[in-house]
Amino acid sequence: MKKADLIIVGGSAAGIEAAITAQRQYNLNKIVVIRKEEQALVPCGIPYIMGTLGSAEKDVIPTSLLGDVELIIDEVTSINREAKSVTTAKGETIYYDRLILATGSRPVVPPIPGANRQNVFSVRKDIDYLKKLQDALKNAKDVVIVGGGFIGAEFADECRKMGLNVTVVELLEHCLYLNCDEKFCIRIEDKMKEVGVKVNTECRVKSIGGNKKVEYVECDKGLRFKADVVILSIGVVPNIELARDAGLEIGEKKGILVDQYMTTSDPFIFAVGDCAEKFCFFTGKPTATWLASVATREARIAAANLFQSRRRRNQGTIGVFGTMIADTAMGVAGLTERLARQLGFNIVTGEAAAVDKHPGSMPGAKELRVNLIFEQNSGKLIGGEACGGVTAGEVANVIAQAISSEMTANDIACSQVGTHPALTASPLVYQVVNAAEEALSKLN
Amino acid sequence: MKKADLIIVGGSAAGIEAAITAQRQYNLNKIVVIRKEEQALVPCGIPYIMGTLGSAEKDVIPTSLLGDVELIIDEVTSINREAKSVTTAKGETIYYDRLILATGSRPVVPPIPGANRQNVFSVRKDIDYLKKLQDALKNAKDVVIVGGGFIGAEFADECRKMGLNVTVVELLEHCLYLNCDEKFCIRIEDKMKEVGVKVNTECRVKSIGGNKKVEYVECDKGLRFKADVVILSIGVVPNIELARDAGLEIGEKKGILVDQYMTTSDPFIFAVGDCAEKFCFFTGKPTATWLASVATREARIAAANLFQSRRRRNQGTIGVFGTMIADTAMGVAGLTERLARQLGFNIVTGEAAAVDKHPGSMPGAKELRVNLIFEQNSGKLIGGEACGGVTAGEVANVIAQAISSEMTANDIACSQVGTHPALTASPLVYQVVNAAEEALSKLN
Repeated sequence: MKKADLIIVGGSAAGIEAAITAQRQYNLNKIVVIRKEEQALVPCGIPYIMGTLGSAEKDVIPTSLLGDVELIIDEVTSINREAKSVTTAKGETIYYDRLILATGSRPVVPPIPGANRQNVFSVRKDIDYLKKLQDALKNAKDVVIVGGGFIGAEFADECRKMGLNVTVVELLEHCLYLNCDEKFCIRIEDKMKEVGVKVNTECRVKSIGGNKKVEYVECDKGLRFKADVVILSIGVVPNIELARDAGLEIGEKKGILVDQYMTTSDPFIFAVGDCAEKFCFFTGKPTATWLASVATREARIAAANLFQSRRRRNQGTIGVFGTMIADTAMGVAGLTERLARQLGFNIVTGEAAAVDKHPGSMPGAKELRVNLIFEQNSGKLIGGEACGGVTAGEVANVIAQAISSEMTANDIACSQVGTHPALTASPLVYQVVNAAEEALSKLN
Repeated sequence: MKKADLIIVGGSAAGIEAAITAQRQYNLNKIVVIRKEEQALVPCGIPYIMGTLGSAEKDVIPTSLLGDVELIIDEVTSINREAKSVTTAKGETIYYDRLILATGSRPVVPPIPGANRQNVFSVRKDIDYLKKLQDALKNAKDVVIVGGGFIGAEFADECRKMGLNVTVVELLEHCLYLNCDEKFCIRIEDKMKEVGVKVNTECRVKSIGGNKKVEYVECDKGLRFKADVVILSIGVVPNIELARDAGLEIGEKKGILVDQYMTTSDPFIFAVGDCAEKFCFFTGKPTATWLASVATREARIAAANLFQSRRRRNQGTIGVFGTMIADTAMGVAGLTERLARQLGFNIVTGEAAAVDKHPGSMPGAKELRVNLIFEQNSGKLIGGEACGGVTAGEVANVIAQAISSEMTANDIACSQVGTHPALTASPLVYQVVNAAEEALSKLN
């Protein structure tokens, strides 16, 4: 009888992080990770395989991170909760003390007529599939990307780096509109257009046409775009079938229901990452935030709570993400103005822009613009956006830290930051601090 | 009779920030800034005038930042606290409701024989003086820098960019030793050596020799270094004469004594920046941290408290600084291991290194190493260092935010960070989080 202290189902970012943290936190005899894929891809690196990295092999999570953990390449097909065991496609049964589900998500394939034509791809975390996509792009001239979220925008940028004629079709008013406020969306859209990507917003795909292979994408407003390849990037759905079949509760957003300690409705089973239901830091309500950084955090929480309960608590998902289109980086943390208003918050915002080195005559200085969103009554920070040079990603982390610590505009105005000519804005105009000051001047 | 709601004495970073914040916070009729210098230099930019910027004019703080504030170029020679007025060198008397002293600091000139020889310079915030230094460097071949703190190290890096033969002489065991722990000092020293700077630590200057002009620097251990120019960068002393003559109390570290609201011993007079006494966030005791970022923060606190007391409180100085030598950036926040131990803290540290983009095959990826220092009993973060690529400066700000929010190692391990291939480390190895995990594994 094969038995492990801990079985982790899924071995992408969340599964690997769970294994690492469990090793760190508990002196376990046996941890087993079971995953279908020989090699797991760095999920956020997938668009960059196409142009920047040049091959999928360069985007693989090194298995060496797992240390002594046993990695089994197989598919778990069922869970027996009473026996505390899992059964695999290859017919193996392994018993567990604790089980972590990190089964991830898969792309939504929309019910568009013609979506099954040859050379229509979605963004699957599958190395062989992505190689086929890359080969198809190498032989293509025109590519249409359906969905202008950040994955779609990044694919667009990579495809234009390959010299392709790229068209993005986005249903909403703006690309990245679920993640950023309008003015920041526009900056990214402008950058996409500047480097030659054709951006069509408020545009609905009606059908994907051609013979065997795709030839064009038919949209509303009488638009038709030539296409040798189509990439569908319109979101993901959690992989919950295994959990559902085992009778675990499922949440409103179709993730495996978990509490603040990442425990499912079975106290011996935890769920982390894209397959797990998330709740919002600001509202406590279910939210859909499928990011590798959220997944690894949940894995660190779950793994710490495996054998000693409640050592780490999930305070709710803030959601922090970054992207880079051509030379323009963006980082976003927490709520956007639009979402905050939709959720019923009274908000006040502050904005500040300055070069990211100082004085502005320092070589390579680039504008970085920060927008901060505060709840009016408490003055607490509930969201922020940074757009400009490469430090935007870490500036979003400064903002995220301030959100999770429940800092107010006044706290941030007095916050202790370091500055240096080659590394940051001047202390006179440090963007996060000055955006807080700007918001305060509206509050006073 | 000339009268202002607010007079600010000194118009460098702290004075300007105080004026801007006072404008924002209160609807004042008249704010006057009085400073000696026609143009104020960006203080942290001074080393970069020499090589990177090429001229002092490129390192000037734009006067336009002052908006409607009246700028008077003159020197305040005395304060009449009873009359609430200041008198200037040009013979003007101006009355105030509130007075902010932002008189800054000046370089320490050590009692070294020969320090008054021609072509021996200190680091004065004086545009004409720095032009003379730059001219002297342009005609030099060998330069000796006395003092390997971060200003000295930056001058060394700039001088070698000018093609000079550069020698640094540092009294302590390492360059930057007052700001960083040994292993980080060594990284910076190694980088200095790699780009051709000669570094001599534990080395004391005995005299500066030559005829009228400097020709060599004589040190202990029988060392003598050829020098056409010598730059003394061994620290600063606060400019407190004006305050002292007015009878204001002076602190242990020779700054103007202030409370947590930046008020001096006179309730109508505030002091901010290098001239003001500072106390340590961790110990509450006087500390000497002369940084522009600390100065501007104090200015924001003082200006908010001018007419409505205690609106902003100084929780004590954490001290966050950044530097960059050749292609290696460093950011430091709070206590070093060495200082923490000296102050009697029981500490536990955690270290993590990873590339600053992900996967590591992303172009331009560079290692970023983070060391975090926690107080053992509380688990609270009390210091941290980041060294590597240009994001090190903002990573130090993430660390500083965590320190000021009194986050523990466990809080940081669960903290919400965003990651992106082009902007940060992978979520599996994000350095700040993993350094906290490493420290926790020692605590458990």
